[in-house]
Amino acid sequence: MDEFASIRHWTAERQTEEWQRRRGVVLGIGDDAAVIDPLVSIDGLDGPYELVMAMDTMVETLHFNERTMADEDIGYKALAANISDIAAMGGIPLHALVSASVPRSFSPERMRQVYDGLYACAERYGVAVIGGDTTSSPQHLVVAVTVTGAVEAGRALRRSGAQPGDVVVLAGQPLGMSAGGLHLLDAPDSPVSAAFSVEQPREAAALARAHQRPEPSVRAGRLLLAHGCRSLNDVSDGLASEAWEIAEASGVRLIMRERDLPRSGSMTAFAAASGVKPLEWMLYGGEDYALLGTMKPSDAAAAKAAFQAEGLPFYIIGEVQAGSPEARLIGADDADSAPEGVLLAKKGYNHFDES
Amino acid sequence: MDEFASIRHWTAERQTEEWQRRRGVVLGIGDDAAVIDPLVSIDGLDGPYELVMAMDTMVETLHFNERTMADEDIGYKALAANISDIAAMGGIPLHALVSASVPRSFSPERMRQVYDGLYACAERYGVAVIGGDTTSSPQHLVVAVTVTGAVEAGRALRRSGAQPGDVVVLAGQPLGMSAGGLHLLDAPDSPVSAAFSVEQPREAAALARAHQRPEPSVRAGRLLLAHGCRSLNDVSDGLASEAWEIAEASGVRLIMRERDLPRSGSMTAFAAASGVKPLEWMLYGGEDYALLGTMKPSDAAAAKAAFQAEGLPFYIIGEVQAGSPEARLIGADDADSAPEGVLLAKKGYNHFDES
Repeated sequence: MDEFASIRHWTAERQTEEWQRRRGVVLGIGDDAAVIDPLVSIDGLDGPYELVMAMDTMVETLHFNERTMADEDIGYKALAANISDIAAMGGIPLHALVSASVPRSFSPERMRQVYDGLYACAERYGVAVIGGDTTSSPQHLVVAVTVTGAVEAGRALRRSGAQPGDVVVLAGQPLGMSAGGLHLLDAPDSPVSAAFSVEQPREAAALARAHQRPEPSVRAGRLLLAHGCRSLNDVSDGLASEAWEIAEASGVRLIMRERDLPRSGSMTAFAAASGVKPLEWMLYGGEDYALLGTMKPSDAAAAKAAFQAEGLPFYIIGEVQAGSPEARLIGADDADSAPEGVLLAKKGYNHFDES
Repeated sequence: MDEFASIRHWTAERQTEEWQRRRGVVLGIGDDAAVIDPLVSIDGLDGPYELVMAMDTMVETLHFNERTMADEDIGYKALAANISDIAAMGGIPLHALVSASVPRSFSPERMRQVYDGLYACAERYGVAVIGGDTTSSPQHLVVAVTVTGAVEAGRALRRSGAQPGDVVVLAGQPLGMSAGGLHLLDAPDSPVSAAFSVEQPREAAALARAHQRPEPSVRAGRLLLAHGCRSLNDVSDGLASEAWEIAEASGVRLIMRERDLPRSGSMTAFAAASGVKPLEWMLYGGEDYALLGTMKPSDAAAAKAAFQAEGLPFYIIGEVQAGSPEARLIGADDADSAPEGVLLAKKGYNHFDES
């Protein structure tokens, strides 16, 4: 099957022109380039907007393998990771371009599954797939995705806006679930994983789902922007790493409290069974796609009410202080813990250091 | 070196904020996503514009290896291939995002060379590099690039606009040089290649350069758009394949004349030495980045004068006829050739079928 036949085969008639047109698409897949109209009015956006663009890649063996991800999950998560970056700017995702480098081990039928997952994610988040390319790959599947989104002009939520006196807020799913899911999936036949899957099937499924089908926090990003959020990151590389990034970009100190971090029962149970400290996964696991931000205390109170009204999770987990840029954590057992907490390691979930 | 340190290392201070700002960049590399202002006025564009977006990937062993490309060439060409897609829409390239999946064989120093080449191309074509990501790769270097550009609203040059009565035009470098260069570079120690490189060093260098540092025809695309071009493709997959694409997208027949195709002396000489028919490389070689289009004869005459005034190559190579969609070629020796020419094979230079 040649390249165009493949792309047509995997993408044809998944999204109507009318549906794409509402996202500004003038010309979609099939020419040298896609064409988008940046002046089309976008549902949910007021006034002139700017475009946000992110590009993120998933590599077989590094981000997934046959144990950890079904083919549909690969496509779903490749797009979800990019949507999370748009959410972290407070934006609404609009368009995606997809580059797949395909080894012989991924048959056309397997690639159809990858695209099934990708389009499932696109439909869920309203993203028009407008282009990309397909090449062969000598050995491993590589899926690179570019996503655009829109955000009200001048209001994109950067890392650099945190100010002393802000509170630190966290929105989205509890941390560490994706890391727990990875631990479970990558060694399914270990005695601990096997027993956990049999004895606590719902918890095991929740962890697997968190790893395979993460939920980018688009609505949370929009609510945070509407309520005066001043700095924002998605937690794709672990809480510690993201807190450090905000601290360094903003020139402030972030102090978080362990007791205020939301904790998943599934994750805690599996960590205990595995002999892992839950906090390790929460701080240094990756790919959770919650949002970590800072805002004025009064704005945070209003945001909390807005999140509650929509049934979305929102937590105030710390404070921003003046001082040398760093991220600290006050332990859950206050008696043992200094009031300024302990310095968090700067390490994160860094695919580049693995292989 | 972690991911962000790497990206900073390879990209820091290559382009100033002021330079990027003139291309609409509000926020470049360093946050979750880049931010661009689609309302900034772009030099050379009149009135409201639309954005064009393309994504193209280069894979080690498939598109390049250590014989055919220096590290700088890899970065240069990865961006150039995408710029060519913008040129093929009549657009002005503006922004690029770059995803590199890096195996151990590419040290940080080698990757710096890759980025040196990429930024050289970016500077030459005025492209702001605004984002991307870096991951490790188990074995092969994969460089995926997304490029945006701008084109006057409603005027992007599609494949589907060819009409009976149009002439077929070709702008840019002569065809087949990149294929000749690949042939030369991939077997440098073959007796033919070695002798050619010694005896005709300038011709050998021209072929190598055509393969390693192709020149996307941005200015040509702009001139064609200004002169009423009705359909356009870049010749990235070979003349035959691109002509077929226009024919099928437009529902017309393209008839081209061999004697009107520009022919490179270097390519012809090396083809002769190699026992290859030059026409094979011209029709079915790829990555030439010339532009193939159709326009009214009177518009083509005006375009020819405009190209000549700027010293740019422009050729009228055939006609568009009503009829079943297909691409045909009238041979150089008229006596042997039927007036309707011979049907061209639909095959192209298709990386997906190789490996």
